[in-house]
Amino acid sequence: MEKPSLPKGTRDFGPQTMARRNFILQSIRSVFQKFGFQPLETPAMENLSTLTGKYGDEGDQLLFKILDSGDFLKNVDATKLETRNSKLVANDISEKGLRYDLTVPFARYVVMNRHEITLPFKRYQIQPVWRADRPQKGRYREFYQCDADVVGTDSIICEAEIILMIKEVMALLRIADYTIKINHRGVLNGIAETMNATGKEADLFVAIDKLEKIGEENVRKELSEKGFTTQQQDKLFELLKTPGSPEQKLNTLLNAFATSASGKKGIDDLKTAFDLLGHYQSSSDHVDFDVALARGLSYYTGCIFEVKINNVAIGSVSGGGRYDNLTQAFGSKEKLSGVGISFGIDRIYDAMDELNLFPVEANASSKVLICHFDDNTLQHGLALLTALRQKGISSEVYPEVSKLKKQLDYANKKSIPFTIVIGEEELKTEVFAVKNMTTGEQQKWSTEQIIQHLA
Amino acid sequence: MEKPSLPKGTRDFGPQTMARRNFILQSIRSVFQKFGFQPLETPAMENLSTLTGKYGDEGDQLLFKILDSGDFLKNVDATKLETRNSKLVANDISEKGLRYDLTVPFARYVVMNRHEITLPFKRYQIQPVWRADRPQKGRYREFYQCDADVVGTDSIICEAEIILMIKEVMALLRIADYTIKINHRGVLNGIAETMNATGKEADLFVAIDKLEKIGEENVRKELSEKGFTTQQQDKLFELLKTPGSPEQKLNTLLNAFATSASGKKGIDDLKTAFDLLGHYQSSSDHVDFDVALARGLSYYTGCIFEVKINNVAIGSVSGGGRYDNLTQAFGSKEKLSGVGISFGIDRIYDAMDELNLFPVEANASSKVLICHFDDNTLQHGLALLTALRQKGISSEVYPEVSKLKKQLDYANKKSIPFTIVIGEEELKTEVFAVKNMTTGEQQKWSTEQIIQHLA
Repeated sequence: MEKPSLPKGTRDFGPQTMARRNFILQSIRSVFQKFGFQPLETPAMENLSTLTGKYGDEGDQLLFKILDSGDFLKNVDATKLETRNSKLVANDISEKGLRYDLTVPFARYVVMNRHEITLPFKRYQIQPVWRADRPQKGRYREFYQCDADVVGTDSIICEAEIILMIKEVMALLRIADYTIKINHRGVLNGIAETMNATGKEADLFVAIDKLEKIGEENVRKELSEKGFTTQQQDKLFELLKTPGSPEQKLNTLLNAFATSASGKKGIDDLKTAFDLLGHYQSSSDHVDFDVALARGLSYYTGCIFEVKINNVAIGSVSGGGRYDNLTQAFGSKEKLSGVGISFGIDRIYDAMDELNLFPVEANASSKVLICHFDDNTLQHGLALLTALRQKGISSEVYPEVSKLKKQLDYANKKSIPFTIVIGEEELKTEVFAVKNMTTGEQQKWSTEQIIQHLA
Repeated sequence: MEKPSLPKGTRDFGPQTMARRNFILQSIRSVFQKFGFQPLETPAMENLSTLTGKYGDEGDQLLFKILDSGDFLKNVDATKLETRNSKLVANDISEKGLRYDLTVPFARYVVMNRHEITLPFKRYQIQPVWRADRPQKGRYREFYQCDADVVGTDSIICEAEIILMIKEVMALLRIADYTIKINHRGVLNGIAETMNATGKEADLFVAIDKLEKIGEENVRKELSEKGFTTQQQDKLFELLKTPGSPEQKLNTLLNAFATSASGKKGIDDLKTAFDLLGHYQSSSDHVDFDVALARGLSYYTGCIFEVKINNVAIGSVSGGGRYDNLTQAFGSKEKLSGVGISFGIDRIYDAMDELNLFPVEANASSKVLICHFDDNTLQHGLALLTALRQKGISSEVYPEVSKLKKQLDYANKKSIPFTIVIGEEELKTEVFAVKNMTTGEQQKWSTEQIIQHLA
């Protein structure tokens, strides 16, 4: 029989990894909830009519399609089948696909439940998504997304709260050195207008987006190829390099954008966001107004965010922004503006691992293993086990009569931090030897003392 | 544009449903962890070679298959394609399928990671599974399974702990009236031997399994059709109707099984399980030795369990049992015996809903909404908001300047239990009007008092 294997680009998460992933997910979830976001889950499968055309041609190629059940070939046109055109035939034998992200299912949910939803609607969603991408280091075919969005309000309070949520998540994860980059699509449009490049925004923003990766010289080269003059490029880099604190940069650019309405709107929104942080009694520590932040050609229309953990060679761990119209792709006439943030838990995991930030508690094991020598001590151990569990102490007994060494090995391999050995002597005195498996330290405690120390 | 819809048999879970589902899942998860089970997650997609042949022909038909990416028709044999035999072609254009249950992926994981796993291995797994079943009331194409298994030990301690776990889960869910039915495959084999029906176990157990549903008369009819004599049937019902407490039934059957080794083994294991409950200081309340419990033609070989919530018209909400060899289907020579339990959260949800058992806390909303009248009171509300959140009180502010009625409506629709209205007067006195949205009661509290009452 062939050895079983995993589909490429997919992973099992064993106990240790799960405990750490749950630590990250639980931290994010608790912050989302504290800020009034409510959970939503949508099915793994969506109709292809829901998914197709929402992610561009490239995205459509990366959708995992589900073969229709039953006799799927029955109604396929014979001549179509003869063409052997996979794309053409796919539409006839597959009507469902796996979720590619959480935004389109969210928009679909809002359209389908518009009348039951109270606006502004604050939802979070933590679920896996699937992409038929070429697997490589850090890129998987199944991975979790953790999204929070508010739709149905233009209030910049939502942007301020996204910054506050990022800060709380980072604090819970004990990540101290990070930067929240913030910019605004209006600022980018203002730059385009100020350098007389209206109509060429797409080329411009794509080039700006690469600045950090490829440097000024290469960006200039690309811009020249796209027909931007040296004068335009000089203007661009003058604006991108605006010096000073966020406040100073905002003031400088406000002057530079004297004739750009969208530039001024962008600066206004950002100023409001920074002001609001103050009203929340929060500082602008960690927050950097980064004029060069563009976030690709995404659908954002207002503020945009990106979070980078400093001193690790890992891309951004979180990103998001404001969009104009969540449900546009479903033909909805009502303009639902919103703003969202997404955390990338695989990257956060890798960064925390590199920085050695996982707390000892991020361990999925019991706290206590009860060891014994024979049926009698085992049976008496069960009463102690019950007493510990009643106090909420996760604990277990080695289920078989075995050599003590084997039982202690089990505790070590499972990283169970405490063992209690029950022998005949212990049964008489009702005082038990509790061993700290990390330090090797041993204490003689009564049941009450054990509970007191370990609960 | 067509209105978006959900694939049939799938569901969205909105905030209210999610909160309740999370209450159930979190209760189950906390019990699994307290008993030393560790989390595992496997990918949604498995190779079809992993899944096929594990669930019988009917199961194979219900697997959702994933269309291979790219030009999937390229290498399909032309004559095969011409046959239009969907089953034949499916194998050539699809190599992956969606997980059908959690047991086969668990077995696959154990085989692939055998050398890193410490036995006995206690894992729990809470993930969705997918079946291309005909959707009907209470049966979905995507649903969660919550499984816990111990493999690598024959110890009946594991069976006793499954009973204890079920009891703790039911207590956390506040389900008071339920029955844990327990039986043993050995007992069923003992019945077959005692009624001289060896070799006809399959027909016999299938018929016994239907007893509760169709009654004695119909079971007798079915048995007659399958060639069981009246004498055999009388013997069967004499054994099935053994009267008395679990202990009395066990003793009666032990005598009846004088010549059946597997019957005696079954009774022995069950006696041990009941004895162990005593050592755990737990009673056998809720536990019923049900000689007629068969759990279909499943792969169980030892104790079997089933949990029924009484006085609701909903099938069993949990089931499980002991099996001989987890990894047999993957050609593993090592016999890994184990025992597992699975909770059906959709049925638990329906039962709790019917019995009105969801606690008020199973609500995914913020605890507090801060309401205001203008930009000034809104801005000052943000400081209070921060103070509440710092104490872990999940809270939010209405993000726009709006009529108070609209803000209170928002709180009502989201089931937010408390509102705090901030006006100019409140800013001066620093005493706020806190309204209990359920009772309508209003209190005048300082920030400290608010925290004291709501934290």
